[in-house]
Amino acid sequence: MRVLGVDPGLTRCGVGVVEGVAGRPLRMLGVGVIRTPAEADTAERLLLVEQGLERWLTEYRPEYVAVERVFSQHNVRTVMGTAQASAVAMLCAARRGLPVALHTPSEVKAAVTGSGRADKAQVGSMVTRLLRLDAPPKPADAADALALAICHIWRAPATNRLQQAVAAHRRTTAEAPLMKGTR
Amino acid sequence: MRVLGVDPGLTRCGVGVVEGVAGRPLRMLGVGVIRTPAEADTAERLLLVEQGLERWLTEYRPEYVAVERVFSQHNVRTVMGTAQASAVAMLCAARRGLPVALHTPSEVKAAVTGSGRADKAQVGSMVTRLLRLDAPPKPADAADALALAICHIWRAPATNRLQQAVAAHRRTTAEAPLMKGTR
Repeated sequence: MRVLGVDPGLTRCGVGVVEGVAGRPLRMLGVGVIRTPAEADTAERLLLVEQGLERWLTEYRPEYVAVERVFSQHNVRTVMGTAQASAVAMLCAARRGLPVALHTPSEVKAAVTGSGRADKAQVGSMVTRLLRLDAPPKPADAADALALAICHIWRAPATNRLQQAVAAHRRTTAEAPLMKGTR
Repeated sequence: MRVLGVDPGLTRCGVGVVEGVAGRPLRMLGVGVIRTPAEADTAERLLLVEQGLERWLTEYRPEYVAVERVFSQHNVRTVMGTAQASAVAMLCAARRGLPVALHTPSEVKAAVTGSGRADKAQVGSMVTRLLRLDAPPKPADAADALALAICHIWRAPATNRLQQAVAAHRRTTAEAPLMKGTR
């Protein structure tokens, strides 16, 4: 499976594409950062993030998009920008019919390093080793995006089983009441 | 000027189009609510909001889009959805090259009722009177979207003078350093 990981942000939006399956060596196809000028309007910055993500989606054709789940325990201003950039990432994926998975920072750290409280350096170091890179990707947002993609590949078997179970349950439930009158 | 007001939300996204200029009677061209099912994935809900907004932009061809500025002093879960829906509204406007203005709830209430602490009923009542409607638009999100559009029309003269001053200042500043190396 090929996964685009997105570490959302308006100033720096990390992006990384990883291909592989759980239990086998993984391969990095691309990594980078989409930047937008702090002085620009939020609307303009969101447009630049969208244009950047569209280029990545078109070039790498991922089958899944993994986005960091945003919490609001941090700085209010930063969280707003992060939430808005993550919305653009989800929207770009949904428009192409790609499944979107959200993973929390702790889930990503735990998946990649074994500890949900690992620091940036540990995450960068494990990403470098797992993808057999020469050096940790810089900036940290780029490494985090790769870690998100790796996390998604490794968690996917469990998640897919869960989704299959939910889908099977829905099929056995008459009239699909979840969606009744909502569209 | 023709303004699309957007009261952002995932469950109910209020939309309203008002035409007019400050100091003259205003005219409502359309009002409504874009709804998305609470059971759907966030990505799917954002896509439905985008599709809904695109329909409004295509049908009414507004020259400006006014979006409620989101703060995070409220419920965390709600604020995330609101921030994400507002990102979609800003993005749709920016993609069409439409100027986006953000107004706070207090600014909107003050513009429409004279008090920044007016309640929903007072806002609905003033919107009804200003647009010469038979009854207050329901739900409140729809009335709020119209209030946003009205607020923008009335505040626009001051905002435009400010934007012109900023633009003039930028023109006199050598090398446009704001954007240097950022694109």
